[in-house]
This record gives sequence, structure tokens and C-alpha cells, in this order.
Amino acid sequence: MAEYLESLRVLAEKFGQLEGVGKKTAMRMAYSVLELEPEEAADFAQAIVNAKEKIHLCPICQNLTDRELCPICADSERDHATVCVVTDPRTVMAMEKVREYRGTYHVLHGLISPMNGITPDQLKIKELLTRVGEGEIEEVIVATNPTVEGEATAMYLSRLLRPLGVRVTRLAYGVPVGADLEYADEITLFRALEGRREV
Amino acid sequence: MAEYLESLRVLAEKFGQLEGVGKKTAMRMAYSVLELEPEEAADFAQAIVNAKEKIHLCPICQNLTDRELCPICADSERDHATVCVVTDPRTVMAMEKVREYRGTYHVLHGLISPMNGITPDQLKIKELLTRVGEGEIEEVIVATNPTVEGEATAMYLSRLLRPLGVRVTRLAYGVPVGADLEYADEITLFRALEGRREV
Repeated sequence: MAEYLESLRVLAEKFGQLEGVGKKTAMRMAYSVLELEPEEAADFAQAIVNAKEKIHLCPICQNLTDRELCPICADSERDHATVCVVTDPRTVMAMEKVREYRGTYHVLHGLISPMNGITPDQLKIKELLTRVGEGEIEEVIVATNPTVEGEATAMYLSRLLRPLGVRVTRLAYGVPVGADLEYADEITLFRALEGRREV
Repeated sequence: MAEYLESLRVLAEKFGQLEGVGKKTAMRMAYSVLELEPEEAADFAQAIVNAKEKIHLCPICQNLTDRELCPICADSERDHATVCVVTDPRTVMAMEKVREYRGTYHVLHGLISPMNGITPDQLKIKELLTRVGEGEIEEVIVATNPTVEGEATAMYLSRLLRPLGVRVTRLAYGVPVGADLEYADEITLFRALEGRREV
């Protein structure tokens, strides 16, 4: 009957745009919306609009924020001489849970991946170089995932950054090879941070 | 960081309301919304509102529709003397894909489940009895899932319907026990329909 339910089909299509949502799941979600109370559905729609409207990238670290600067960049108690470079905002969240890291971050929003057509200029690398160029940063910890793309991106950054006179380190292989940092437990992340090494 | 991104947290909460969406998945989806173009996000929000506004239950079969009657109930070429009782609208979609069934449907919107506090009066059983009471229906095929709740609901319906003089049948056990009809392949559903038996 879905062929008649155009508005349901359209809604499923929207869910299907989201990362990791397949066709069946998208349709299940669309049905699920129909089971919400009308006000809940209206709130849901509003939440999408609000999130898009309020959240933007921090002009310093490129992490998501709903303020002018993100709370980490705005925090004078953090160590602004140490920058941890991560793939995406979710990794910042994972790192912050460790509660051991007191430096700042830089979010690349992706990894270099020629296979997927992602080149360095599509990532926030230029912004990182500008930050380092300002001279306040002493160490850049590259905390990309220990995968082929993560390693390649780390190598690329290291080659660009070392000439600028900063220490470039990489998380220790405490994180299991091939894993996603987002799913690493806190102790693993802590150990990886402690044992970080120069690249 | 998530503690600062109130609008992201709220959005993740909304995704979390949907059936089968856990906390991690909900957060991943919320992040994914931020990666959409602004117009895509606006369309997404609008699609939720539209689906809720346009889709209601068919007054005859209780299936979802965006018309006065659903296209199956409105179709004079279908066999209105045969009613297939299903748990939810998704099962109607699965059955329609078989293209062998020419009768109509009745959507219960759930199964009797004392464990989950779902009693017969919360389902569209009253509406089914009214339809059968009108005298046009000759056979009711109970196509609930072959699970404990599905069987219990089938038994309950059979006891109510037989005194009204209709033939009450059940899908043959072509569908694997414990499975979800929505995921049954078309041949299995076809065989199950062919081999249906009285209950």
C-alpha cells in the first residue's frame, strides 16, 4: 500500500538520508512516526529545524557548537598549547569522557580517502595549519582512527606540521587496530592517550 | 560536548522515541542531520508534519491511508467477502507484494499481550466484529505472526468470530515459527496463504 501513501514514502526517504539507515529501517521509522502523538511529531520536526539552526562549527576547533566559541575553546583553564586532532565531533565526545585530557581539539570532519574521493582540501586541515601557524601550539596529538585512512591522514598531517616546529604525536596503539574510536572504552582511550608517541 | 549541545541532545531524544532506535543510534542520527543541507533538513521536518497530517486510518479496515477509504477497501474488484486480519500496516504491505491475495484486510494494530499490558479493547477487534456483523464477510483469515501472542490473538478472534457464522482460517505454518511476517519472503507467504487452515 506504500505506493498510495506518498507522504509516508517521502518520510521514509528522509530517514534513509541519514548515515547507516537502510531502506527497511527507514520505512520502519516512518511508520513509527505515525504512532507518535501529534504534538510529539510536531516537536520532532521542530527539533530538526532547531538543531540545524542553532548548531554551527566553532571558528577555532571546527567542533559543533551552539555558542560563538565552543566551551572547550572558550575555557581558559584548558591547555591551549596542546591540540588533539580528531576525525569528527563524536570522537571529541568520546575523548572528553576520559576526563584526563586537558588540551583542546581540532575536528577534521573526515579522513583523507582517495578511494572515496575525499581529498585534504575537503577537510579542516587549512584551519589547523592556520592555528599552528599562530605559534601558540606546542603539541599536536593526531587521534585519528587506527585504520588505513586514519594512518594516512596522520602521516599527511605530520609531514605538514613538523616543519612548523610543533611536536606531532599519535595515540598509542592501545586502541585495537581497525576499531572505531567512538566505541573504545574509557580505560583504553586513557591508556592510548598516556602512551602517545611521536610520529 | 553533548551536554552543551542542547538542541542536538533534544533531537537525539526524538529519534530515540522511534521503534527500535537505541541511544547510540539516535545520537548518530542526530549528528547525521547536522550534515544535511539546510533545505534537506527543512524538508525532513516538513515530511514528518505532512505524514502525520495526511495519514489516518481507513474507517473500514483500519489500515493507514491518505484517502477517505484505503485503495483496497475502495476497490470493487477485490473480494470483500474475504478478510485477512493482520497485526499492523506493514504486514498488509508484505501480503500485497505476494499479488495472490485478492480479498481485503483488517489491521488490528497490535496483538493481545497481557505481559505488555495490551488487552483486546486496545486493538481494532470491535471494528472487526462490526464488519463481520454486517453479514457480507464469509471468511476471516487470521494472519497474525506465528508467535505466542499471535497465536493467542488468533484463538481469541476465532472464539469471537465463529459464533457469527464465518469461516475462520489461519495461515499455514509455511512461515517459520517465531518469525516476523514482515520479513517473510514472497514464496513463503504465498505457500502459507495457499495452505491456510481452519482454526
